[in-house]
Amino acid sequence: MEGIFYGVGVGSEDSELLTIKAVKTIQNADVIIAPKTEKQKESIAFSIAKQYIPKRAKIIFQIFPMTKNKKLLNEAWLCNKNEIVKYLKRGKKVVFLTLGDPMIFSTYINIFVLLKDEGFHIKTIPGIPSFCAIAARLGVPLVKENEILSIIPATAENNTLQKVLKNSENIVLMKVSKNSDEILNQLRRSGHIKNAILVSRSGLNDEIIHDNLETNKFFNINYLSTIIAKKK
Amino acid sequence: MEGIFYGVGVGSEDSELLTIKAVKTIQNADVIIAPKTEKQKESIAFSIAKQYIPKRAKIIFQIFPMTKNKKLLNEAWLCNKNEIVKYLKRGKKVVFLTLGDPMIFSTYINIFVLLKDEGFHIKTIPGIPSFCAIAARLGVPLVKENEILSIIPATAENNTLQKVLKNSENIVLMKVSKNSDEILNQLRRSGHIKNAILVSRSGLNDEIIHDNLETNKFFNINYLSTIIAKKK
Repeated sequence: MEGIFYGVGVGSEDSELLTIKAVKTIQNADVIIAPKTEKQKESIAFSIAKQYIPKRAKIIFQIFPMTKNKKLLNEAWLCNKNEIVKYLKRGKKVVFLTLGDPMIFSTYINIFVLLKDEGFHIKTIPGIPSFCAIAARLGVPLVKENEILSIIPATAENNTLQKVLKNSENIVLMKVSKNSDEILNQLRRSGHIKNAILVSRSGLNDEIIHDNLETNKFFNINYLSTIIAKKK
Repeated sequence: MEGIFYGVGVGSEDSELLTIKAVKTIQNADVIIAPKTEKQKESIAFSIAKQYIPKRAKIIFQIFPMTKNKKLLNEAWLCNKNEIVKYLKRGKKVVFLTLGDPMIFSTYINIFVLLKDEGFHIKTIPGIPSFCAIAARLGVPLVKENEILSIIPATAENNTLQKVLKNSENIVLMKVSKNSDEILNQLRRSGHIKNAILVSRSGLNDEIIHDNLETNKFFNINYLSTIIAKKK
């Protein structure tokens, strides 16, 4: 009998922000897949979930490189997918840990699509998206009444970004990093800058919060940064 | 000493989709506020959280009417807020249950803003948004790579809706109900209809899933319906 592949959202800052279902799924796992980038020394998803991982589970750190090179990316996904298939064919319960929610900008989506196409049994357990965790902690409502909320990767094209900013009272910018100057300019033009908050390494020991983006120009920003902004 | 007001997201379909932190907060509550509309016979948020509520806790069902009459709404919010203040002044831990995530289109936001302005101590515990729960269960990635995800209330103005649909590959339409015909027309025009799924009363016993919105015209839709749609 073939195993089951679980994509488990571990939320984004706190081991208590996993759901009961996520914790139970991790506790029953035979194999834990913890994704990490080449550069990172640790897997943040692993650190958050660590306390729930059973001793008997095999832990595998898989490298998902941070590159725009499609060929390298595809190779990494295939290689990681094949390693997972090996365990599924042995009937194992394989849990893939993923930061935030598995269906929002995750590495998991790539593996999910590959395995789904090959007919494997998959269960996805939702997680708290980073922007919900940040909004709750900082006391910032994300969207209300008849308003729009747009979730935008900072890697989107400038033209697209501009149009979306124009029509959304509320925005969440994810994956903010190197291009932050251009992003801030766009927020200035669209009228979102006054009520914008940037959170870098949310919830971790070295978290940084900037809530005065109108005057701030340079940040020590890494790829885990998020901006929540409002037009009014 | 004054009490603490907690806004707790209970997720949207399953008692196992509450976070560990949400469960602990409910278990420590002195007072549980369960919001309901006039028409509803039950509070769905209460049903989901019920098994975690301690016996000693006082349970209060507060009515939040479904009306566009601003005066009636404000009266209801003030009246409910005042009832909560009474318990906070007695030093109680008051937990306000809220479906999905507290900072996304919730009744909680109104009470949160009122209490915040009066200086009360508030903690918000995030929850799994309904669209994350649905996407995970149905195996539909919400947004990936450089794409945009827009969260839109079906009550938004047609003009706004049209512009947002134009610029978002991925959309979530919440609070879909009476105006569903107009919504479907818009999705047809924007090219989102082919990959659209409508879920009514998500996760409940009488859940309905429609994944052929191109031909379907009439639904038995209530206000808990959500549409997830993609352009490609």
